[in-house]
Amino acid sequence: MRILGIDPGVATIGFGLVEADRGRQRLLRYGVITTPAGIPLSSRLWQISQDLSALVGQLRPDEAAVEELFFSKNITTGIAVAHGRGVILLELERAGIPVYEYTPMQVKQAVAGYGGADKRQVMLMTQRLLRMKEVPRPDDAADALALAICHARAATSLLNTDRAFDPKKYDTR
Amino acid sequence: MRILGIDPGVATIGFGLVEADRGRQRLLRYGVITTPAGIPLSSRLWQISQDLSALVGQLRPDEAAVEELFFSKNITTGIAVAHGRGVILLELERAGIPVYEYTPMQVKQAVAGYGGADKRQVMLMTQRLLRMKEVPRPDDAADALALAICHARAATSLLNTDRAFDPKKYDTR
Repeated sequence: MRILGIDPGVATIGFGLVEADRGRQRLLRYGVITTPAGIPLSSRLWQISQDLSALVGQLRPDEAAVEELFFSKNITTGIAVAHGRGVILLELERAGIPVYEYTPMQVKQAVAGYGGADKRQVMLMTQRLLRMKEVPRPDDAADALALAICHARAATSLLNTDRAFDPKKYDTR
Repeated sequence: MRILGIDPGVATIGFGLVEADRGRQRLLRYGVITTPAGIPLSSRLWQISQDLSALVGQLRPDEAAVEELFFSKNITTGIAVAHGRGVILLELERAGIPVYEYTPMQVKQAVAGYGGADKRQVMLMTQRLLRMKEVPRPDDAADALALAICHARAATSLLNTDRAFDPKKYDTR
């Protein structure tokens, strides 16, 4: 099964494609989609939509793992990233790819073995699990690979998250 | 000029179409797009994308006014609405419609005459300016009409907001 991990954003969107086979994960491709600053947000969202759609057509993932948003720190960052994340979820839906969502803590737990692992530990484990010569760069791509591994392991152990939209979680007006 | 006001969301998206002509605004149409709870967020975003795209094709607006997001209260609501707002901006961009953004305070200022006006005052002024027999319902549609009026008045007085994406405002990671 080909799993596409996606670290959502507007300026930089990380992606990582992993082949999951009998409890092992193999690296296929990773990188980032970037959009220029200084143009309208709607134009950046349009570029993300076009680039992601082309990428998904090329990579042909079976499933996608997208990071859930948690914002204890910066609300304006959160709002911007959520705009990009909305477009990413839309394009995956358009392409008919099932989307699974994981919190940063679930990713740490799945990749490094415990939810309190730091960024560096998760990166080193990602490198090791995918048998890479160096730690994946940039950070957004490394995060995307960790998400793909997280989903590979969750799928293996039948711990799929529920895709149903929970109105209590995403309280809308 | 035909102006489409949009009150963004995921569960309910308000829209209001107004013809602006020499300082006067005329009501053309208003309503809401709704998506059902209990289905995945990505499916709801897909429905919003489809419905908005069909609506824009029907209504043929020249410009759109979309509410900016401010969240002092509920961050989870803000994150959800921003997902929907991202998809709305994308579809307007896809249709080639210039998007202008206004804060709730700018709308109150433009419609009711001062930024501290309450919701009821803005609704009554919206009703009066558009020569409607009753206050527009539901609230999301009323908000969308107020946004359209706000843009009509801003455009008249050459107070157009700057469309350029401000990386300081939308701080992205």
